[in-house]
Amino acid sequence: MEKEEAVNEGLKLAGRSKVAMLGTNSEDGYPNIKAMLKMENEGLKKVWFSTNASSGRVGQLRKNSKACVYFVDADEFMGLMLVGNVEILQDKESKQRFWRDGFEKYYPAGVDDPDYCVLCFTAMSGNFYHGLSKADFEL
Amino acid sequence: MEKEEAVNEGLKLAGRSKVAMLGTNSEDGYPNIKAMLKMENEGLKKVWFSTNASSGRVGQLRKNSKACVYFVDADEFMGLMLVGNVEILQDKESKQRFWRDGFEKYYPAGVDDPDYCVLCFTAMSGNFYHGLSKADFEL
Repeated sequence: MEKEEAVNEGLKLAGRSKVAMLGTNSEDGYPNIKAMLKMENEGLKKVWFSTNASSGRVGQLRKNSKACVYFVDADEFMGLMLVGNVEILQDKESKQRFWRDGFEKYYPAGVDDPDYCVLCFTAMSGNFYHGLSKADFEL
Repeated sequence: MEKEEAVNEGLKLAGRSKVAMLGTNSEDGYPNIKAMLKMENEGLKKVWFSTNASSGRVGQLRKNSKACVYFVDADEFMGLMLVGNVEILQDKESKQRFWRDGFEKYYPAGVDDPDYCVLCFTAMSGNFYHGLSKADFEL
């Protein structure tokens, strides 16, 4: 598979995925995985998530920003892994941008709820595979 | 959620899952994720996968055995993460035990193909969630 095709197919998979797996590292160096609702993506370079600032995952990311984001279509034997770092955003603009109807259920104080934060993942590299065909690429 | 319920629900999810996400660490400390066909599981303590001995994932595991296995039902907001270590098995007994019809396509030399290996994941701890309810447990 050519890199251009891998990026294009990866973009399609990321675009149609509502959920992504976020990989982080625990303090003792064990990889952790959690399915997260993808809020938005900007090409393959950036992916945004909303989550609880008090969650264990955010605590891990404060200590170690290294992460990966994985989009998968297991039925099609297709997957896209992006490797990079996560920034935890709590500024008003970011919080408003990714606020969605229904979030009041999780954040009773609304968009200013101190437990509501935004994760901004920035990719350095990626890998896309479909069946036995695959390609790595820089971002 | 009580720990007993988390373990029981986690067992059901692992049992019905054909695919699991395997989390590993790259040499530079970035988490990596790959969807893998689950071969078998023994409760929540052990999960077996078959894969290529020459693959990048196996190369990572030779250097760092720390791993996690994640089973997910995204539609039900349900997930089980197991954290532990992976052993790479290439003995004849293990290779025969997990050989499946059709593997010839990937390993032309059959069960003795040096590129065919078995990953045995052993969990130390787990976390199960369903909606907003969750529990951690030791294994």
